Amino acid sequence: MEITVSRKAHFNAAHRLHVKQWDEEKNKQFFGLCNNPNYHGHNYDLIASVTGEIDPVTGYLIDTKWLSNLIKKEIEDRFDHKNLNLDCEEFVDLNPTTENIAIVIWKLLKQQLPQNLHLKITLYETERNYVEFSGK
Amino acid sequence: MEITVSRKAHFNAAHRLHVKQWDEEKNKQFFGLCNNPNYHGHNYDLIASVTGEIDPVTGYLIDTKWLSNLIKKEIEDRFDHKNLNLDCEEFVDLNPTTENIAIVIWKLLKQQLPQNLHLKITLYETERNYVEFSGK
Amino acid sequence: MEITVSRKAHFNAAHRLHVKQWDEEKNKQFFGLCNNPNYHGHNYDLIASVTGEIDPVTGYLIDTKWLSNLIKKEIEDRFDHKNLNLDCEEFVDLNPTTENIAIVIWKLLKQQLPQNLHLKITLYETERNYVEFSGK
Amino acid sequence: MEITVSRKAHFNAAHRLHVKQWDEEKNKQFFGLCNNPNYHGHNYDLIASVTGEIDPVTGYLIDTKWLSNLIKKEIEDRFDHKNLNLDCEEFVDLNPTTENIAIVIWKLLKQQLPQNLHLKITLYETERNYVEFSGK
Amino acid sequence: MEITVSRKAHFNAAHRLHVKQWDEEKNKQFFGLCNNPNYHGHNYDLIASVTGEIDPVTGYLIDTKWLSNLIKKEIEDRFDHKNLNLDCEEFVDLNPTTENIAIVIWKLLKQQLPQNLHLKITLYETERNYVEFSGK
Amino acid sequence: MEITVSRKAHFNAAHRLHVKQWDEEKNKQFFGLCNNPNYHGHNYDLIASVTGEIDPVTGYLIDTKWLSNLIKKEIEDRFDHKNLNLDCEEFVDLNPTTENIAIVIWKLLKQQLPQNLHLKITLYETERNYVEFSGK
Repeated sequence: MEITVSRKAHFNAAHRLHVKQWDEEKNKQFFGLCNNPNYHGHNYDLIASVTGEIDPVTGYLIDTKWLSNLIKKEIEDRFDHKNLNLDCEEFVDLNPTTENIAIVIWKLLKQQLPQNLHLKITLYETERNYVEFSGK
Repeated sequence: MEITVSRKAHFNAAHRLHVKQWDEEKNKQFFGLCNNPNYHGHNYDLIASVTGEIDPVTGYLIDTKWLSNLIKKEIEDRFDHKNLNLDCEEFVDLNPTTENIAIVIWKLLKQQLPQNLHLKITLYETERNYVEFSGK
Repeated sequence: MEITVSRKAHFNAAHRLHVKQWDEEKNKQFFGLCNNPNYHGHNYDLIASVTGEIDPVTGYLIDTKWLSNLIKKEIEDRFDHKNLNLDCEEFVDLNPTTENIAIVIWKLLKQQLPQNLHLKITLYETERNYVEFSGK
Repeated sequence: MEITVSRKAHFNAAHRLHVKQWDEEKNKQFFGLCNNPNYHGHNYDLIASVTGEIDPVTGYLIDTKWLSNLIKKEIEDRFDHKNLNLDCEEFVDLNPTTENIAIVIWKLLKQQLPQNLHLKITLYETERNYVEFSGK
Repeated sequence: MEITVSRKAHFNAAHRLHVKQWDEEKNKQFFGLCNNPNYHGHNYDLIASVTGEIDPVTGYLIDTKWLSNLIKKEIEDRFDHKNLNLDCEEFVDLNPTTENIAIVIWKLLKQQLPQNLHLKITLYETERNYVEFSGK
Repeated sequence: MEITVSRKAHFNAAHRLHVKQWDEEKNKQFFGLCNNPNYHGHNYDLIASVTGEIDPVTGYLIDTKWLSNLIKKEIEDRFDHKNLNLDCEEFVDLNPTTENIAIVIWKLLKQQLPQNLHLKITLYETERNYVEFSGK
């Protein structure tokens, strides 16, 4: 039987939305306040949702403690209290929009999960803006 | 790559559940307290979820500021602080159940979005009752 | 030892902010959208906070089940799914602002509580607007 | 038109994660603190999401009052303030993981719903751990 | 200048409300479902609020990381995933009502804090029931 | 009759905790990850709570629309999407801890309020860390 198990986590980071190929004027017009050259920041809330077959003996799809530790090691230790543009190699040439951060997180977690498990990422930039990505 | 971006908004409105073809007795029995002829009201929480291909240059699916302004113009300005039954032409001949309000909102927003974007509406009538509609 | 026990509840109602002594123009200018003659509405979240001495035998200040039933009987049955201006005698000559509703609720509950218990009411009109009243 | 209506509910229960075929040592190692032989407990938040065709006359998919009463009778009366392992026959031979509880709840509610309605269960064990099951 | 800094934490536990001096019948009548002899359980949400003078050099009242670690060591390690009645010496002769748990937590934390700091505990047993205690 | 009216708002900002009189090593040891020289950031949730006498004619303590506009002009326009250390003169010589930000916000709003109104600020740096200041 197919079931989905989700685990919430969070991290705080600074970022700036900016396209390197564009000049300052175009960036400012397109991204508005989010283009502030001195950066701004967010409390990111992250949900990792894993789908697969339940183990009939244990009644687990996945050990949420193991999933929580994986998120800590792969995502929180990497991005928490960081400047995404300056401190994180993943965003050297990639604009750290919520969409792109979600895709980066999906890739980092997916390669550590057993292959038969499907993964969906939900990432809240604020309480009112969030993104979902499932690798399609 | 397909991704979903969601934006939350809200509005407050009065309404009365009532089927015009039915007599008062049948309405009262079927809709209970929600049929109060003097109306009652809710804080409606609305989530508009847009799905499509991410723009590889900007890293945006859609500008959430633009989406927020669209929701303000099409939904909040139309329904906020209104009596849905008396003030809103959409519900002159349509019972303002959460289901019907969600469908009306979906239609109003869908026709303003680029055609290649899929739209799903989640509408909370209370913290414990909510409806999802995606145009299928 | 003095302790405070709180119980949350909620009710949904329609209302209109309106001062009877003022003409329509002044009401509209002062209360804006909240003066809509056809009413609008809210999901009101209510917290009743009771303070007093803990019973050393039971370890209770007050039975929250009893408090919950009191709120249901005195407040929810009276105001839930009602039009505060039209259906509720408490607001015939009293403008149903969040402040006034909180004071009315405080009086209705206080007279049913044992006299040695202090009562504070917190009333949310929306997630972002709320009022506190403790009878001072 | 296909629409989804959701209703939230909750119940509080004690449980212990334990596989009867395993010895104490293996259980303790695998389930950690959740294997405490004296039990621990949770506030379970439950969302029942029903999908089907809207009734064009009433504008309802389902009466949420009816759905709320069904959840109370089938789930809350059965599991609220209970020890899942000791008090509930459903878990005599089934480990009460969140996954298994969600599946049990799905079966209990599904058989009481009209056959043309699809059901999905979301069950929160804590604010950070939750499970979704839709009978696939 | 006097300021208050709060830190939230949580733990999950099983408990049973029961007064040892009373017979089974009186306990059952008074505490209802909460008297289940097989226990039930909750996700307890805890807020520790510390008040005192801000340090003019650091701009800190207290290091929230230190406060978080203190709560982990003194409260979470002691009560999380435990049966309060069976596993915790604090409740051998003390009924584990929310009121009594809050007082026990206040005493455990207060003696570890610098003497000039005032402490208030807020303890949620469920989202709708909570207790506040500040040592008066 | 004395009553309290609260209004919630929010802003997103980058910051770095750093004491200018200290060397890098001492700053790093004391503030840990929060001392990242490239900054990190937060979604700050702000509650402004105003206490005073209710107006017997209008039933208002204060117009929450006016209060909301005041917060937008004095706080959101000043701090939203900013780097507190680099963009805001208030923090040139003041470490932007949650405590200090709350005090700065209190001063900015207090001087714009009618003198007979008492003001309390609650500022959430994360969902789990928050500060209260009322000018004492």
